[in-house]
Amino acid sequence: MAPRTTTPDEPDPETVFDRLDREAERRDRAGLTRRPPTRSAVESTLDLAGNDYLGLATHRAVTGAAADAARLWGAGSTGSRLVTGTTESHATLETELAEFYGTESALVFSSGYTANLAMITALADERSVLVSDRHNHASLIDGCRLSRAGLRIVDHTDPDAAANELSRHPGAGLLLTESVFSVDGDTAPLRDALRVCRVNGAALLVDDAHGLGVLGEGGAGALTEFGMRAAPDVVSTVTLSKSLGAQGGAVLGPHRVIEHLRQTARTFVFDTGLAPPAVAAAAAALGVLREQPGRGARVREVAEGLHRELVRRGVPATRPGAAVLGIPVGGANAAVAWAAACLRRGVRVGCFRPPSVPDGDARLRLTARADLGPERLTEVAAVIAETAPEGTG
Amino acid sequence: MAPRTTTPDEPDPETVFDRLDREAERRDRAGLTRRPPTRSAVESTLDLAGNDYLGLATHRAVTGAAADAARLWGAGSTGSRLVTGTTESHATLETELAEFYGTESALVFSSGYTANLAMITALADERSVLVSDRHNHASLIDGCRLSRAGLRIVDHTDPDAAANELSRHPGAGLLLTESVFSVDGDTAPLRDALRVCRVNGAALLVDDAHGLGVLGEGGAGALTEFGMRAAPDVVSTVTLSKSLGAQGGAVLGPHRVIEHLRQTARTFVFDTGLAPPAVAAAAAALGVLREQPGRGARVREVAEGLHRELVRRGVPATRPGAAVLGIPVGGANAAVAWAAACLRRGVRVGCFRPPSVPDGDARLRLTARADLGPERLTEVAAVIAETAPEGTG
Repeated sequence: MAPRTTTPDEPDPETVFDRLDREAERRDRAGLTRRPPTRSAVESTLDLAGNDYLGLATHRAVTGAAADAARLWGAGSTGSRLVTGTTESHATLETELAEFYGTESALVFSSGYTANLAMITALADERSVLVSDRHNHASLIDGCRLSRAGLRIVDHTDPDAAANELSRHPGAGLLLTESVFSVDGDTAPLRDALRVCRVNGAALLVDDAHGLGVLGEGGAGALTEFGMRAAPDVVSTVTLSKSLGAQGGAVLGPHRVIEHLRQTARTFVFDTGLAPPAVAAAAAALGVLREQPGRGARVREVAEGLHRELVRRGVPATRPGAAVLGIPVGGANAAVAWAAACLRRGVRVGCFRPPSVPDGDARLRLTARADLGPERLTEVAAVIAETAPEGTG
Repeated sequence: MAPRTTTPDEPDPETVFDRLDREAERRDRAGLTRRPPTRSAVESTLDLAGNDYLGLATHRAVTGAAADAARLWGAGSTGSRLVTGTTESHATLETELAEFYGTESALVFSSGYTANLAMITALADERSVLVSDRHNHASLIDGCRLSRAGLRIVDHTDPDAAANELSRHPGAGLLLTESVFSVDGDTAPLRDALRVCRVNGAALLVDDAHGLGVLGEGGAGALTEFGMRAAPDVVSTVTLSKSLGAQGGAVLGPHRVIEHLRQTARTFVFDTGLAPPAVAAAAAALGVLREQPGRGARVREVAEGLHRELVRRGVPATRPGAAVLGIPVGGANAAVAWAAACLRRGVRVGCFRPPSVPDGDARLRLTARADLGPERLTEVAAVIAETAPEGTG
């Protein structure tokens, strides 16, 4: 099939990617090859691995809105948000999202990943210094790499370490943190973070991907939880793909910040707009949250209950700040075996191995779900404890 | 509303983003502020700005598949592709896409942007040298910036310039080009590009975002057009958001390359999987293309007809290699005025200003649509010619 234009003097085109085979062998030997599961439409397992914390991805109001939007607007947005990719439904979602979250404005992206790239690269320039928590998500790290700013990595959730770096660059700092860290589920001390920012004339950039829908009254997110709504020096990102059950991301903040991103952020200007079904689904999910403001509190209760039941059985789960719990395991093979044993007992948990986590620091990741009743919760904790490898806890 | 924890000695948090106001004023003065249009569901204008070349975004088979998928799978994929974000529909789409396009394997991403970041950062390491066409898209440029590889920018569609750089780094080069360039719509000499790659032991990376559905027999894309199906040393990206009318992107290539991306590409591992409605819409669009293989040829005919009609009227449109035509204008204000005049006459065209294009190089961008009949085409060309600013052509 392949056209062979090479002559005997030329390299064999088959060999160009040979190094990838060697890397694959190394990965296999280290137990780091991922074999992602393929979900079928009818699943009998209990999912504690996904991020659909509130069960809204399959809520009738949400899926119905997605279906209607496909028929009304089309399956795709047809272009960049600056050309043909902004429908009235995009504008409405942005208004409603900002109001719900507690900022002047919001800008929707096709993923949380591209929202994070946009926030960082549009707000940090070569005169800026990004001060970034050591546990920050890959998309935040890539945003830092893409920006032309200076970069200082600081110890995890340590406001003093952040203050130390920010004080060296008065007026030029941007402190970058997740609200709820994605693997271990612990929360950042955002009040302290904002205080050290203000002392040093810095801005606070918060990735609230795992906070929206879970933290704060009515699930309004981290700014509500920490009393920082409408702060003029805070910019947040959220995803539409976790608590809101859809796809996409958004940057939220003061009007002038959002307007600056609309004009300059490369992942806004040069990406196709979010598809209308996802836009409509996220808007419908917000509607469900407004009508049923207790869902966020419920999922926090479930997470705390799960933590209690696990610890009682000797499983060293991290204390959840929101809906996510981590269980440190250590070796990658042990983590894989534990997750597989859970799955055989009908419970799907996340399994994080290097390079997603540091070497020797593999862990299971559990996500609480608002629809998990007390009995099922006890049962799940028992499954996890009974399948634990020797020496856990 | 904002909590003020500052004391008189501390900077005013309101001032943190003051520089953004100054940048906004500069943009305004230079005529570079974008005021993106918001589409309503019922549009009376003729759209020559979007990338829905084949009209599939609103095709009943495509929107129906999106609606059904929302109800069957949910509005979102609920997690990373490695955790819960791979449904059977993702796996099926990847198989069908690879078969249609002519590669061993395919991997679907939530956008073309993140597919490009993945292709480049996963295949180029600190020992690699990326040789990149001067007109490459922002997402390719960002991929180069994110990678740890060396970077050489070469003249536009100049295989000799590329060969010159590749020859200095035998076995380490990656030649990076679009098949159809996104603003001017010209095509790259891919056969020559592959030849210079093979002479130098380099791989060819092709962004075929504007080729899929338009180039090649049956709209199978650039690899088919240029006789390069199943080449062992070529990797492509496509979008699902242009000819396929949905959302998302994909990387296509030899099995070992795709497997390497599945294991290591950060925008695959750390991003939420594409939403099921978009997956199903793209698969349905591929089905329409298989049943109606003439759609790609038809849109090329329309583009050529539009070019002919414009040139006949003295409008200096670029010769289209696929569905896209550019019209150089020069000043940003003139381009904005021209696009606005077209819109008043019922024709929406794209308007590209700095920083999307170099300073003083603003242009209109037109996209052909498969459903544009000969009469309407003549009418559109007349509108564009009659609204041209003084001195055009």
